[in-house]
Amino acid sequence: MKKMIIASTSTIYGSGYLDYLLPTLQTHFKGIKTVLFIPYARPGGISYENYTTIAGKAFTKINITVKGIHEYENPKKAILNAEAIFTGGGNTFELVNQLYKNDVLSDLKLVLENGIPYLGTSAGSNICGVTMMNTNDMPIVYPPSFTTLGCIPFNINAHYLDPIKDSKHMGETRETRIKEFHVFNETPVLGLREGSWLSVEDTKITLQGKYTARLFKQDEEPKELESGVEVLI
Amino acid sequence: MKKMIIASTSTIYGSGYLDYLLPTLQTHFKGIKTVLFIPYARPGGISYENYTTIAGKAFTKINITVKGIHEYENPKKAILNAEAIFTGGGNTFELVNQLYKNDVLSDLKLVLENGIPYLGTSAGSNICGVTMMNTNDMPIVYPPSFTTLGCIPFNINAHYLDPIKDSKHMGETRETRIKEFHVFNETPVLGLREGSWLSVEDTKITLQGKYTARLFKQDEEPKELESGVEVLI
Repeated sequence: MKKMIIASTSTIYGSGYLDYLLPTLQTHFKGIKTVLFIPYARPGGISYENYTTIAGKAFTKINITVKGIHEYENPKKAILNAEAIFTGGGNTFELVNQLYKNDVLSDLKLVLENGIPYLGTSAGSNICGVTMMNTNDMPIVYPPSFTTLGCIPFNINAHYLDPIKDSKHMGETRETRIKEFHVFNETPVLGLREGSWLSVEDTKITLQGKYTARLFKQDEEPKELESGVEVLI
Repeated sequence: MKKMIIASTSTIYGSGYLDYLLPTLQTHFKGIKTVLFIPYARPGGISYENYTTIAGKAFTKINITVKGIHEYENPKKAILNAEAIFTGGGNTFELVNQLYKNDVLSDLKLVLENGIPYLGTSAGSNICGVTMMNTNDMPIVYPPSFTTLGCIPFNINAHYLDPIKDSKHMGETRETRIKEFHVFNETPVLGLREGSWLSVEDTKITLQGKYTARLFKQDEEPKELESGVEVLI
């Protein structure tokens, strides 16, 4: 009974926070009065309070109230009682660290499997996969595990970037990094470009937005999936 | 008594493996017949054998033989008996994972403190810092810890990249990521551009190569260090 939106990014170039997603969110969160916000990823080290204010301002535009999980005494109960949930982007290592520290990962998985509407952006999307091993983030903290929700049967590489033509930088391309991952792991990886998102309706996962997405499987050539198609692994 | 070269990259654009460093290495490894190579970082998932062959080809040019640590029955003894050591780049998570798995981190630290000449490039440079928390690599495996050698009193961000002007990509810049690190950690971070390296002579650390390096300290504005100057933390 899953009902999730898993987005590459919260913000596309030249547009405000969540703006490009608002029409979709209006339908997705229809009938919802309050969304529980998980600000643990703290982009740029922002405080939970300030991050929740940013999320709240965006949701006001579709008449939904946002309440941060840090405003509740018991984060487990906050998740179990939530009408809907949004996990924002930032640093995936710190997000996962806090999900473990607050012991809410299994609760979050439970309510998502039960159909509580969910939105994830960037780090909040990475955690929907089997592991967080395809994040682009810097490992600024050491989480107790890289295992995440596993609400979809593959991993997400958010902000997917194609190799930059004629670049003189010798650091690895995103594709090289994902291929390295497949030397050690079997889990498929979906590279989601900024402006793309997945719509999850129970077991049906559909690619949305303007762009194709790049699917990487172990020992196979990567392939481009068209927007609008079901993601079949 | 440390004697280390800590380089941002093995290879600069348009040049062969280690080519730009060979004149420096000729002096650094003067009198050395065999360098022990640690290929654990496996760039692109390459095998230990093939990676060691690549390193060997470069060192042949300065009449030094390279032997991979995997060729020894006992990796601890290989390190303790080494004349000189080179750790190549690749994936820092896998490199650190294997250093722990083979239980050689403390041995490596010991011989480096005792003055065994060392070369690190990229991931092999990251491990010289206090932690590996400023790697750019993807967390494709889960190492038992992020703590590394601590042969220098700060961390390395290899392949340091300045923000790309007019980029429409919404992923974090390198500077943003390092600033996020300093929300959670006190360790200073040196952003080493490709073509730069540190020369460590006991406690004296000097920036070498054509470029400035960017030093980040908690609660301070980052500053550019000139090539040729001592890095004082």
